Amino acid sequence: MKPNLDQIIAYFKSLQDTICKRLETLDTEGQFQEDLWERPGGGGGRTRIIEGKHIEKGGVNFSAIHGKMPTNIQESLGLAPNDFSATGVSIVLHPKNPFVPIIHMNVRYFETDQNVYWFGGGIDVTPHYINEKEARNFHQQLKDVCDTFNDTTYEEYKNWADRYFHIKHRKESRGIGGVFFDRLSADESNSKEEVFSFVKNLGNTFLKIYEPLFKNNYSKDYTEDNIYWRNLRRSRYVEFNLVWDRGTKFGLQTNGRIESILMSMPPLAQWQYDHKVKEGSAEEKTLQYLKKKLDWLNYKEA
Amino acid sequence: MKPNLDQIIAYFKSLQDTICKRLETLDTEGQFQEDLWERPGGGGGRTRIIEGKHIEKGGVNFSAIHGKMPTNIQESLGLAPNDFSATGVSIVLHPKNPFVPIIHMNVRYFETDQNVYWFGGGIDVTPHYINEKEARNFHQQLKDVCDTFNDTTYEEYKNWADRYFHIKHRKESRGIGGVFFDRLSADESNSKEEVFSFVKNLGNTFLKIYEPLFKNNYSKDYTEDNIYWRNLRRSRYVEFNLVWDRGTKFGLQTNGRIESILMSMPPLAQWQYDHKVKEGSAEEKTLQYLKKKLDWLNYKEA
Repeated sequence: MKPNLDQIIAYFKSLQDTICKRLETLDTEGQFQEDLWERPGGGGGRTRIIEGKHIEKGGVNFSAIHGKMPTNIQESLGLAPNDFSATGVSIVLHPKNPFVPIIHMNVRYFETDQNVYWFGGGIDVTPHYINEKEARNFHQQLKDVCDTFNDTTYEEYKNWADRYFHIKHRKESRGIGGVFFDRLSADESNSKEEVFSFVKNLGNTFLKIYEPLFKNNYSKDYTEDNIYWRNLRRSRYVEFNLVWDRGTKFGLQTNGRIESILMSMPPLAQWQYDHKVKEGSAEEKTLQYLKKKLDWLNYKEA
Repeated sequence: MKPNLDQIIAYFKSLQDTICKRLETLDTEGQFQEDLWERPGGGGGRTRIIEGKHIEKGGVNFSAIHGKMPTNIQESLGLAPNDFSATGVSIVLHPKNPFVPIIHMNVRYFETDQNVYWFGGGIDVTPHYINEKEARNFHQQLKDVCDTFNDTTYEEYKNWADRYFHIKHRKESRGIGGVFFDRLSADESNSKEEVFSFVKNLGNTFLKIYEPLFKNNYSKDYTEDNIYWRNLRRSRYVEFNLVWDRGTKFGLQTNGRIESILMSMPPLAQWQYDHKVKEGSAEEKTLQYLKKKLDWLNYKEA
């Protein structure tokens, strides 16, 4: 049976609920603050922000909007004039401990009244310090989800993430990548129901991915130097989101709810002119890994 | 006598020297670090960065580049294919004390081998806390410079700055504005020499503008709350520069020298979800002033 908009919205809402609840438990102190908002043109959202003990700043946002599609967007999407609906969940978590990575997930669905629809999404991880074993495990988890869909899905969406989460002006990847996809709809090999299942599998993997990254690292000792490096890496995150991220740019240029869009900004970021890492340092090692086309699945310890 | 490229470059270099020297004296401790760089396509620059006692992070950059104009830029400027030269000085100073404003100036000159040239520039001030008297004095200084050029120059360029230095997604001005202009060349009322004189007058006014703003405020007492607010305002500065500033976007998308372009980034910035100012606070007063079309010249104390 073809999943309909209401079912997809219901899943995204429940995903937001599940993730928020579990993150509060992990954080032990922080609680999500919820802001309900309405969009003048139709629909609205539930923005939820945590400023916790271990998750220094995080957002887990749900929205479901609908209405007449603005002409410029309709044209940029290559569609006929239409009424549209768009719904999704967006997550960005900035941890306090520099050894816990920043994580991002977005899962989304879009449809028009003219029989066009697609799903999109992505998960990517931005460690301040890259841990190779964790990077491999993360990519293996993504591959396991992708393999339930199509044999080539992991490779295709991993490469898409490499291209997308790239800070072009720095010639540097945002982190260790992950998966990214857009405009995914039924084809000869997968029905709409199967596509939705894949998106659900991905959404449901978020906590399985984040929990070990969090638990193995949140209580590690760190120095002021580690914090400084974390803040420098956060400023790269800012640069990517404000300069290159299509979702952010789209939101800022189309009068979206600013505070919800910019929940991805870190609590604190630092810029230093022409910062140089020390030779042989953990920071240098991390920089060397910030490249496209790394085969994390087959990473072997030296 | 028509000023030529060499004379204009010589002026910009001397302007950079004069300003750097004076800023080091004002700071008392900080010294500019100079990086000379060359552009693969032709030309180069002198990037100078200070990380001082009172000027927490500042850049005073000179560049003079030339070469074959990239097709996309040539088209976006509406020009025929050409060889071009571009030179200018760019300044952004982030003070430590929250009561000293952030200041920005840019003066620039552009010419092609096909008899096209123009000057451009701007000065604007971004106080973390707006002081009405200082805002009035600043605008009066700009008006005095503009009045030496044309009767309508101040009004025209002040309005241009209001439009340009506007954080559209926040519906908020970056600061108290200033002047902004582009594509300024000789016309019936001013020769090229007179246009250059105006640009020189503006450049030479920078220190006269900044010195009192610095001296009257750099030693004022401040609290942790003032610092927090300064950091929040700095994050708005980041948002403007990365999302809207044409010079920054242009540089990032055309493979400019990243560290020189992003010298405008603050040393430290903070984002808080949906920050609210206290009623009746100095922060609230400042926010209320962050609007276009304020007539600072005729501001009268209540």
